[in-house]
Amino acid sequence: MNTLTLGLFGFGCVGKGLYDVLERTHGLRATIKHIVVKDRTKVRPLPQERFSFDPSLILDDPEVNVVVELIDDADAAYHIVRKALLNGKAVVTANKRMIATHFQDLLDLQRITGQPLLYEASTCGSIPIIRNLEEYYDNDLLSGVEGIVNGTTNFILTRLAEYGSVTYADALVQAQQRGFAESDPTLDVEAWDAAFKTVVISAHAFGVVVKPGDVIRRGITTITPFDVDVATRHGWTVKLIASASSENGAITATALPTFVPKGHPLSTIDNETNAVRLHGAFADDQLLVGKGAGAHPTAAAVLSDIAALRYAYRYEYKKLEQIDAPLTLDATRTVTIYARGTDASLDSIPWLTVDVDHKSLNGRYVIGRVQLGDLSRTDAFSDSDTFLAVIHQ
Amino acid sequence: MNTLTLGLFGFGCVGKGLYDVLERTHGLRATIKHIVVKDRTKVRPLPQERFSFDPSLILDDPEVNVVVELIDDADAAYHIVRKALLNGKAVVTANKRMIATHFQDLLDLQRITGQPLLYEASTCGSIPIIRNLEEYYDNDLLSGVEGIVNGTTNFILTRLAEYGSVTYADALVQAQQRGFAESDPTLDVEAWDAAFKTVVISAHAFGVVVKPGDVIRRGITTITPFDVDVATRHGWTVKLIASASSENGAITATALPTFVPKGHPLSTIDNETNAVRLHGAFADDQLLVGKGAGAHPTAAAVLSDIAALRYAYRYEYKKLEQIDAPLTLDATRTVTIYARGTDASLDSIPWLTVDVDHKSLNGRYVIGRVQLGDLSRTDAFSDSDTFLAVIHQ
Repeated sequence: MNTLTLGLFGFGCVGKGLYDVLERTHGLRATIKHIVVKDRTKVRPLPQERFSFDPSLILDDPEVNVVVELIDDADAAYHIVRKALLNGKAVVTANKRMIATHFQDLLDLQRITGQPLLYEASTCGSIPIIRNLEEYYDNDLLSGVEGIVNGTTNFILTRLAEYGSVTYADALVQAQQRGFAESDPTLDVEAWDAAFKTVVISAHAFGVVVKPGDVIRRGITTITPFDVDVATRHGWTVKLIASASSENGAITATALPTFVPKGHPLSTIDNETNAVRLHGAFADDQLLVGKGAGAHPTAAAVLSDIAALRYAYRYEYKKLEQIDAPLTLDATRTVTIYARGTDASLDSIPWLTVDVDHKSLNGRYVIGRVQLGDLSRTDAFSDSDTFLAVIHQ
Repeated sequence: MNTLTLGLFGFGCVGKGLYDVLERTHGLRATIKHIVVKDRTKVRPLPQERFSFDPSLILDDPEVNVVVELIDDADAAYHIVRKALLNGKAVVTANKRMIATHFQDLLDLQRITGQPLLYEASTCGSIPIIRNLEEYYDNDLLSGVEGIVNGTTNFILTRLAEYGSVTYADALVQAQQRGFAESDPTLDVEAWDAAFKTVVISAHAFGVVVKPGDVIRRGITTITPFDVDVATRHGWTVKLIASASSENGAITATALPTFVPKGHPLSTIDNETNAVRLHGAFADDQLLVGKGAGAHPTAAAVLSDIAALRYAYRYEYKKLEQIDAPLTLDATRTVTIYARGTDASLDSIPWLTVDVDHKSLNGRYVIGRVQLGDLSRTDAFSDSDTFLAVIHQ
């Protein structure tokens, strides 16, 4: 594919960012033929005649060989991507929710159509995590991938750690004012976004396709200054950690608040920065740090995917295709957790062992060992007055 | 290439590490057929009959399709690699000196023979920097790569910063005792090793093949507690930084002691750890951190290259082959430097501007602006009583 003729869906921050970058990038030999948007009335930074409103203008144009999908709506995105692949076009997308929700379908579609679907921008923006898992950590020596993959929650947790008395609600407002959180922040703060990325990472790191609902997931909305204070006094930093790790032929996939010891490389990753740590049997640890979101970092990741198409790059999903003994998803692994809440919720947890049971006028918390799968079935896991965090090993 | 039959040259730390890893890696379908070593009398951890001493046993065996070269001697390594490629074998090597010294020859040999030569382990051990520059930063938006690429010097500089009064000589002995420096540390402490890696990075990042001698290079052997103290009081950390950066169609390639401001991501990379920072026009900065040397990290990088050969991976040197307006090497860029030394050496520097000229009983130093190329031609650059460091912008 020597000349890339692009059809672009969506012209929000990332779409505009990509447009800017392409205008200034001469070596790439990629031109945007059509830009299709939804809203006919919105004021946009390019002349009105540059935009169209009919998806089939892109999808049915045989000259368009690459569809770039950058819209918000995951369902509409799925239909566009599906149609584009079936019509023989390569696709680049940044839509993590769409990718994670339809992972198996999208695998099948790629196989049936022979067309590549690239989505580096979906996971940690400009950090090339998918490409590295695909290409470089391509042997069975990877034992775990863990990361701070959501900038919104990391910004909020950084605020909470900096100002001991600030509440979650105040920190969220700060994040919204700075443009790091959307007006409906649910996907971020309830760790759905982190769970979507865990799905992508699990597939590319370990060849296991899990559903977003299979990721053991809990948000940060119930955190209080009390929890932050306990963590700080123990020498821990609170982070939302997405993790996929393999042990004895099975993987665990989680997106959970985590108390990370000071000194751990993820403990100092602050504000909206993302970082991914790869743990291998022999390579020691690798840390990749970068901007996880925002118009330009995301546009740069999209651009790298577009550039890769020029050389007919595609994910080979080697770990999915070729693995001798496929790994399975496992929730029986035990972890040490911190839980703060009411007696009812704390006592509903099937503790294997209890290390600390601390009660004071300010509240009660328990530190002890539980089986991950058990934990996600307790009242505590859904109780809006309880905060839970894994204590990082 | 579905079955890999390996011929291994060298059985030092890395060779042994690779052997261990392969023994435990079943998915790879790679077997070591021959191990050729030089010294017939050395005691080795495998039975004597496992070793051979005749290179042609590997080089002339049509069944061996991958030669893994892990010997110290750069000249002997070059002859092995050359012969292996000409005999139609893929080659994996960790030898940075050999790669950097013969870069253009090795490019030509790959083109003539059609055989791949992979050398991820040559630059920052287990950090997949070459693969990332090749595959991911494959558009013209990369503006700079800078890194701590030599563990020996970083270990020494960390010791100097931690204990204000320790001398360079003492810190070197500590590094040697800990196995981080060789008995002849010249290649490391004079920044030749960093220069070799700068050659590799310049080629893969910017498509410019430079010779090791073209890299503007200075070692750390003349550093004193006085220099460390000045840096610390200014809020700087002393690091040896390898850098290749592009500006206005030209690149600068340097391997120089550098005063890095606290807060810069490289300032906290301590001891033998390596880190590489990629600066792009749009992606913001990326930081890759990991172990840069040692048996297992290096073996893991070698293994990733071996694994990649199974899928016929090769470096495409796209930036070398396809660039529209090739970049050139440039030494006219101006930098701010710190120089401490005798009046004669300091006055030999053609300062463009002088910001600080500090004289006390403890010594004299000057901070000012110079043209890089001018600097490397002054007496100060070769004077063993003078310490020079770039002040990071």
